[in-house]
Amino acid sequence: MNDASSAIPFAACAATIVAAGRRLGAQGLTPATSSNFSMRLDPGHIAITVSGRDKGALTAADIMVADMHGQPVGTAARPSAETALHTQVYARFAGANAVLHTHSRTQTVASRLYAPAGKVRFQGYELQKAIAGHTSHDQAIDLPVFANTQSMPELAARVDAWLTANGHLYGYLIEGHGLYTWGGDMAEAERHVETFEFLLGCELDLRRLR
Amino acid sequence: MNDASSAIPFAACAATIVAAGRRLGAQGLTPATSSNFSMRLDPGHIAITVSGRDKGALTAADIMVADMHGQPVGTAARPSAETALHTQVYARFAGANAVLHTHSRTQTVASRLYAPAGKVRFQGYELQKAIAGHTSHDQAIDLPVFANTQSMPELAARVDAWLTANGHLYGYLIEGHGLYTWGGDMAEAERHVETFEFLLGCELDLRRLR
Amino acid sequence: MNDASSAIPFAACAATIVAAGRRLGAQGLTPATSSNFSMRLDPGHIAITVSGRDKGALTAADIMVADMHGQPVGTAARPSAETALHTQVYARFAGANAVLHTHSRTQTVASRLYAPAGKVRFQGYELQKAIAGHTSHDQAIDLPVFANTQSMPELAARVDAWLTANGHLYGYLIEGHGLYTWGGDMAEAERHVETFEFLLGCELDLRRLR
Amino acid sequence: MNDASSAIPFAACAATIVAAGRRLGAQGLTPATSSNFSMRLDPGHIAITVSGRDKGALTAADIMVADMHGQPVGTAARPSAETALHTQVYARFAGANAVLHTHSRTQTVASRLYAPAGKVRFQGYELQKAIAGHTSHDQAIDLPVFANTQSMPELAARVDAWLTANGHLYGYLIEGHGLYTWGGDMAEAERHVETFEFLLGCELDLRRLR
Repeated sequence: MNDASSAIPFAACAATIVAAGRRLGAQGLTPATSSNFSMRLDPGHIAITVSGRDKGALTAADIMVADMHGQPVGTAARPSAETALHTQVYARFAGANAVLHTHSRTQTVASRLYAPAGKVRFQGYELQKAIAGHTSHDQAIDLPVFANTQSMPELAARVDAWLTANGHLYGYLIEGHGLYTWGGDMAEAERHVETFEFLLGCELDLRRLR
Repeated sequence: MNDASSAIPFAACAATIVAAGRRLGAQGLTPATSSNFSMRLDPGHIAITVSGRDKGALTAADIMVADMHGQPVGTAARPSAETALHTQVYARFAGANAVLHTHSRTQTVASRLYAPAGKVRFQGYELQKAIAGHTSHDQAIDLPVFANTQSMPELAARVDAWLTANGHLYGYLIEGHGLYTWGGDMAEAERHVETFEFLLGCELDLRRLR
Repeated sequence: MNDASSAIPFAACAATIVAAGRRLGAQGLTPATSSNFSMRLDPGHIAITVSGRDKGALTAADIMVADMHGQPVGTAARPSAETALHTQVYARFAGANAVLHTHSRTQTVASRLYAPAGKVRFQGYELQKAIAGHTSHDQAIDLPVFANTQSMPELAARVDAWLTANGHLYGYLIEGHGLYTWGGDMAEAERHVETFEFLLGCELDLRRLR
Repeated sequence: MNDASSAIPFAACAATIVAAGRRLGAQGLTPATSSNFSMRLDPGHIAITVSGRDKGALTAADIMVADMHGQPVGTAARPSAETALHTQVYARFAGANAVLHTHSRTQTVASRLYAPAGKVRFQGYELQKAIAGHTSHDQAIDLPVFANTQSMPELAARVDAWLTANGHLYGYLIEGHGLYTWGGDMAEAERHVETFEFLLGCELDLRRLR
């Protein structure tokens, strides 16, 4: 990592992550010290939240640099325990430059409810068009649900297996644990969080009402 | 469109739309980049939100002029994809001067649930009196639900057909897509959004509880 | 009414009502132009909200004086259509100095659901102690539900009949219409609104869950 | 109690309690005049909220000193009626330095629903790791539910009996009454409130949906 070229991007990324955290926290998407956020700094590095901080009240000091193997760079801080899930997204999707993991009550409840089916399918919602690459409510969007484990390599392997079998992916749920999604920039990643949160909420309401 | 006469009205309309967007966004009625808002400028023109903006964080630069055929006037910006539904309201209702399309979870869920019936009927609610022209909770108010399509001419035709068959209309739902409503001014249009949102929420609660 | 003695109380009452309206509106208890609030000024007069205003954004100009027959005093403004329900409370309860009518979704839904039973009974809630005169969760508190009508004399007669038959009363629901409650001062009246709103919400949740 | 050594800690504790109350109140966890909060000042004293105040709008004057028998120290104010439940926690858990009693709708509803079972069991939630001493979603966490009574000695005896039979405890519900939880400092106690509130909300949602 070249200090001359990355010094400014890191400060900008940290500010962007801090601001996103404040918005997501205000929406109740990051209870306690759950959730973690990152951005791609350069081909070999990411900016990511330090482990265990309150994600709704981040400061720049809560953001650190890690390499694509999840190792801290230029800091004694420990990155989020789930850093491997972030680097996996950056490695597999060249267009992904921001990754958001959130943990709302709706996401947690839906992840447990749809775990036996292995996915939530969205169809017939106009808001599906807010997920990049979608132009009609008629297309189906599948959000897979992976079983939870405290082993990050196992979780990463489950995501890899799904990608190998199903191709593209816009986000996923982990059972009892929350949502991972991403975007070409932070604005798109936040739009994806907001959209999946909305669609999951609608699906739960429809289950209650039908 | 005469610049001399419209310069001030446009600025005033843009400010009114921006302020309404902030209030509606704060109530969770405009997730992601959904929703669109407009006001009648003069017999041949409207002020309307530019396509794809965050409706809860609008600035004057996100509002543009379009004619009654939905064509941009004096700008290279693209108006909302659903401009035809706005101009239809202005063409059919001489008294309508503000049109609001919102997209809450309650509206989306209700639109899917009541689509088979084709309408939601409200009766027995004191708050029905907040819809212009109503003086008692005993009157029934029907809010039709139209099937969704990405073709605006088809959607407009469905609204026209309903009007021909049923006469007056205070607003409508599009399945999986949200609410259209309007008023003599922005304050009345906002009161109608707030009232339909409240009444739909009550209907969903009563379905869960009965 | 003596101007010398009431000029200051009216201004103080108006300020108190405006502030209470802002708090109740922020909690979503006063949708559209619903709800109305009052305070006792002296044995023959009350300060009450003018008809049709947004109760969450009141100013002192939205508060007027009425006598105990509901007639405007010193103003051409029209008091709330439901003024007779306020003056009834002041006439029957010497200790009541503030009356609040609110109109939340929870109150509206509960009022329709419990209308056939004629009342909601609260028992086993620690928060019942927040209703004046209660010292244990073991006591039962009945909140009657009266059928709605656009005739205020009829509504007032239903309240009178209930009082004659049942004695004391801490508040009541009108079907499809909301809650009336009151207190020795505005703080107590607001505490009663907050408490009934909480207890009604718990009862609806328990109905959904049992 | 030695004034020289405790003057500063009391002011610091009072400020910490006031700030926590504002945050908890803003989350709707302290309706009406419910809830009470305390911190350990020294081995023989605690700082605790005065009885009957609005916990979301506390000032330093609403915090007082009490000894470990619940007696006021250096003040004529009356401590919370439930002071004995606070001192019990400080006496039994040397590591507890902040105790929070909250009273949300979710806590109240869950406490009534799970009272017959005597406890709520959480398992499979990643957020369980936010309760001190937990490292996996696979462990089970039991939150006991005690029957309510207006007698504090009886309530304290029920808590003692549970501890004797079951060992450690992270918090408990009282039926129809709310949650008690604690932590090594106020930040940990608040994290425990937020976590139990989230987990109880998920459990209620899953009951509705399964």
